[in-house]
Amino acid sequence: MVYWFDLFGTAIFALTGLLAAKDRQLDWYGGVVLAMVTAIGGGTFRDMALGRTPVFWMIDEVYFWVILITCIVATPLVSKITAPGRWLVWSDAFGLSLFNVIGCQVALTAGMSPLIAVFLGMATGTFGGMIRDLLVNEIPLVLRKEIYATAALTGGIMYVSLSALPRHYALPEGVAESASMAICFVIRVLAINKGWSLPKLG
Amino acid sequence: MVYWFDLFGTAIFALTGLLAAKDRQLDWYGGVVLAMVTAIGGGTFRDMALGRTPVFWMIDEVYFWVILITCIVATPLVSKITAPGRWLVWSDAFGLSLFNVIGCQVALTAGMSPLIAVFLGMATGTFGGMIRDLLVNEIPLVLRKEIYATAALTGGIMYVSLSALPRHYALPEGVAESASMAICFVIRVLAINKGWSLPKLG
Amino acid sequence: MVYWFDLFGTAIFALTGLLAAKDRQLDWYGGVVLAMVTAIGGGTFRDMALGRTPVFWMIDEVYFWVILITCIVATPLVSKITAPGRWLVWSDAFGLSLFNVIGCQVALTAGMSPLIAVFLGMATGTFGGMIRDLLVNEIPLVLRKEIYATAALTGGIMYVSLSALPRHYALPEGVAESASMAICFVIRVLAINKGWSLPKLG
Repeated sequence: MVYWFDLFGTAIFALTGLLAAKDRQLDWYGGVVLAMVTAIGGGTFRDMALGRTPVFWMIDEVYFWVILITCIVATPLVSKITAPGRWLVWSDAFGLSLFNVIGCQVALTAGMSPLIAVFLGMATGTFGGMIRDLLVNEIPLVLRKEIYATAALTGGIMYVSLSALPRHYALPEGVAESASMAICFVIRVLAINKGWSLPKLG
Repeated sequence: MVYWFDLFGTAIFALTGLLAAKDRQLDWYGGVVLAMVTAIGGGTFRDMALGRTPVFWMIDEVYFWVILITCIVATPLVSKITAPGRWLVWSDAFGLSLFNVIGCQVALTAGMSPLIAVFLGMATGTFGGMIRDLLVNEIPLVLRKEIYATAALTGGIMYVSLSALPRHYALPEGVAESASMAICFVIRVLAINKGWSLPKLG
Repeated sequence: MVYWFDLFGTAIFALTGLLAAKDRQLDWYGGVVLAMVTAIGGGTFRDMALGRTPVFWMIDEVYFWVILITCIVATPLVSKITAPGRWLVWSDAFGLSLFNVIGCQVALTAGMSPLIAVFLGMATGTFGGMIRDLLVNEIPLVLRKEIYATAALTGGIMYVSLSALPRHYALPEGVAESASMAICFVIRVLAINKGWSLPKLG
């Protein structure tokens, strides 16, 4: 089931890339590039830094197809989307929660320490959007405001903690995944609705 | 002969980097960095994502020398180039065509699927220029207008198709390479001359 | 002792990231990301391109702790720093000198040629700051002015030259390291004090 969720998250992240391209009046190719970068950028960095090569989308090309189909289906609709609707923001929060947990899992499986796993979870969830923002010449949203990475951080800490429970108390993997995703998702959605943000530096 | 073409393409891409640096009044070091990034950025990403490490320019350092010599020779001339002349645009189209086919070849040799090979061809041909544009704080040209990546896409599809012909009908490698480069080159040059572009999103 | 210096350099580079975040009024998370990118970006690129994966900070997570502690300790102080003081500029020059030599060493140990080693030394010393500048939407300082990379270049050439001395004349490793760091440091500090810069292109 994680796999289907993963493809859903990929489609949503691709959609945010396409919307960013539309805002900047890029052409269709620009939209596809931003969609790809957003959807697979974080996982690509994670895999390259871990040495898990060829990276994940080279091994399972369904990610590519999901992105391409998302772009093809969404392009005629995209001009009608004026502001990102609530459904998109919620789906994006879902994608973040999921990619974050997947990043932690991949890192722990590769033998990384809990600290590195939490970081790679955040990287998997947020780097794609950072590169997207860079490419359209904006200071990445995730660096500027709102509780975005902090939600991922909390979910990641919960996931590595639950995964480190002694065997006797160990939870089924599905429970650890769901709980970690839930806390990340809830924090992110609350942050949007309540307008929470971290204090600015300086 | 591909090797000599490759070095020519490297020199041309380096030159476009140097020109970008001049436009932004960077210093000589900035020019060399932009030249390197443009000339070897695409292939470096391709190799890192495939796990072909150390990456190509570490194994054959002639690429470095070509870039350095290009910068040294071109620097005194660069202040006289006001607008990119036709020869530069044509040479750049040639470099794109070649790097695209090389990227496809490398990916197929590494056992990648045709879809991934086409993508890595485009990445090899266009990512260097994207990073160059990012570094001088512009939304990459390739995302904004003109048929650039689309030319690479067409050439890549032709190359992987010709490479996938059943043995009985297989073309000599040189023919597949030349035909794929030719179609990419022709589309790119026509696009410039006719002012073709993809429709904008939104 | 190199190890302690390395951690000191990491902390200083992290601090320059935090200051850049403060200048742009990013939030605390943005500050930590810029601190990380500045401190480990160069070495991460070096390791990924060499295929030394998992990259260095995954194997020895003390780099992460140094960055986090630097951010925690420095955050309350950062609002009082109006202009980068002389101590910061000198420390940054020290960090550059050190990371440069470490990059050369890593490359030579991995069997790279002297030319590639000099380049990877420069990359290790300067790429982190380049990505930092990119993320806050500036044309990287290192491309624009002052003798920064040139200092690294000189130090790198000295290091690979001293390392290539025939056995009969070979210097102790510590001497080669110190001499190379010293020349890089002195050039960088002189460049700042005297306002040296490379000529602009064009």
